[in-house]
Amino acid sequence: MKQVDLDKPVIFISMGDPAGIGPEIIINSFLKDKNLFNICTPVVIGSLSILSYYCSKKDLLLPVKDIKNLSINNKINVINIDTDKKIIPGKHDKYCGRLSIKYLEYATKLVLNNNRTAIVTAPVSKETIMSAGINFSGHTEYIAKLSDVKSVAMLMVSKYNKVLLVTRHIPLKNVSKVLSIELITQQIEIVCDTLKKYFKLKTPKIIMCNFNPHQGENGRIGDEEKKIIEPAIIKLNKSGISAKGPIPTYKAFISPSDLIVCYYHDQAMIPLKLLYGLKFVNLTCGLPFIRTSPSHGVAYDIAGKNIADPTSMIDAIKLASQLITNL
Amino acid sequence: MKQVDLDKPVIFISMGDPAGIGPEIIINSFLKDKNLFNICTPVVIGSLSILSYYCSKKDLLLPVKDIKNLSINNKINVINIDTDKKIIPGKHDKYCGRLSIKYLEYATKLVLNNNRTAIVTAPVSKETIMSAGINFSGHTEYIAKLSDVKSVAMLMVSKYNKVLLVTRHIPLKNVSKVLSIELITQQIEIVCDTLKKYFKLKTPKIIMCNFNPHQGENGRIGDEEKKIIEPAIIKLNKSGISAKGPIPTYKAFISPSDLIVCYYHDQAMIPLKLLYGLKFVNLTCGLPFIRTSPSHGVAYDIAGKNIADPTSMIDAIKLASQLITNL
Repeated sequence: MKQVDLDKPVIFISMGDPAGIGPEIIINSFLKDKNLFNICTPVVIGSLSILSYYCSKKDLLLPVKDIKNLSINNKINVINIDTDKKIIPGKHDKYCGRLSIKYLEYATKLVLNNNRTAIVTAPVSKETIMSAGINFSGHTEYIAKLSDVKSVAMLMVSKYNKVLLVTRHIPLKNVSKVLSIELITQQIEIVCDTLKKYFKLKTPKIIMCNFNPHQGENGRIGDEEKKIIEPAIIKLNKSGISAKGPIPTYKAFISPSDLIVCYYHDQAMIPLKLLYGLKFVNLTCGLPFIRTSPSHGVAYDIAGKNIADPTSMIDAIKLASQLITNL
Repeated sequence: MKQVDLDKPVIFISMGDPAGIGPEIIINSFLKDKNLFNICTPVVIGSLSILSYYCSKKDLLLPVKDIKNLSINNKINVINIDTDKKIIPGKHDKYCGRLSIKYLEYATKLVLNNNRTAIVTAPVSKETIMSAGINFSGHTEYIAKLSDVKSVAMLMVSKYNKVLLVTRHIPLKNVSKVLSIELITQQIEIVCDTLKKYFKLKTPKIIMCNFNPHQGENGRIGDEEKKIIEPAIIKLNKSGISAKGPIPTYKAFISPSDLIVCYYHDQAMIPLKLLYGLKFVNLTCGLPFIRTSPSHGVAYDIAGKNIADPTSMIDAIKLASQLITNL
């Protein structure tokens, strides 16, 4: 592994779908929050022509061939992956799907080969990538595969809460089928490793949410609490991990904890979006590096209009930088 | 049907589990919000000895034999159902389960037989009632049966949102199995009748939530949107009901509408509790009368300490009174 010799952590940013809001929120993150340059050295892996289109400040972008000579002086370093096709913002285009993957693969290769660096991924469209004939079930899973890692965990991080999604993008009706003591404990262990290593939390306090109405009312309204969640808590406690619950999900979100455990996508996303809006980011745990991303999608409907809010992208870059600095 | 001849609507209040927080929040509602006496004539069906225990103001309670001679002068009329057993607050006791049902049945009989009256139900414990050998799957279902009504709908009402729970207290894994175009449209039609009759909304604007992550991503993550929700919307629109969606649940809760449609318990309760705390009430639609209840349970853990917050009970009494006045 090569060590990038800079005081500030190098953050690789994959540009995401060129027809989505990725390019503009990357540019606007650094225009809006100048302090980002003080906490990291950014390297965007994307297409210079598209980034330039969104960049009013001519000298903000600095094309670089590789990461040997990065600017640490208020510039966004750009490793250019050329495109000769005209990209139409907001338009679903399989060519953009292929480009999204090129950026992502390049960025992942860089972060894998350089210690104390992290990757921030701008949004891609699953549908667009799949239309290019690429097998893609999600950013998280794709990066795990590129990194040769079998199990990862999806953690949502706001200023006040950290939330694990035990299952991610699967039909709600299948959640109960895949939920198991093993899956829950495995996912929590992966997150705990991250909480210890990067967040410096020695004994994270974990709150488990309910699954059924009224925590299943002693098994009368569903048995996942009795058969899966409570045994998982016992197993975790035996292995020295401090977990308690299950308690109603809304209560978990207003109780102090280091980690809230949710079992299905919307159980986490409904409270996160309502409580924090764009003020939370996605952190993948279990990779040999830090990967964060903003908590929203490509937003084709507003792409190209320069109205997309870079808040979550700014926070994603901040969190990645902070966690590397904590190491 | 007999018409109670009073200017203000008569609100029958079933006292709920005598060992729960019901008695104290009833008393404290009227002590805290004197204006309640201006909008309704309250009649509690409960046990005078227990109510008196929580009542510091000696002459607040007025025992009445029947509803022919109700006080309309800042008094809580009480139809007494005697108890000779000592009730221990917070203690699960099957005797209390039987009493809960007695109050409820008496109150339901009264509301069924008197026009322009409503019922407000203080919390009961399903577990306690069932331990007394009474078949009880929930307040809502029990009242429907007593009223000889087959299908009712559970509506949560806050100042800003009205939320339908298409399914109520069933295991989460079973929700997809019972969800159907017919169930959704039937439930919405029941609520729309209430919105028209009592809320005076001629053409309620309805927003349907998602069921799966990302609204199912065109069927790739679950097919309930394509197979059930979207066809239900088309069917509703054809019958002149204005419904649209599905959209993400969090978005539905911050969008203007007359009705938000959720499919499972926590999809509604997580945002409601986080956004409104105790400031929302439960309204049963489809009964031949108005029934409201506070949005919380018996709270055995704090019962008897006189610390329970009457906010939701106050709102339940207010809403019931308002809806009768609207008629």
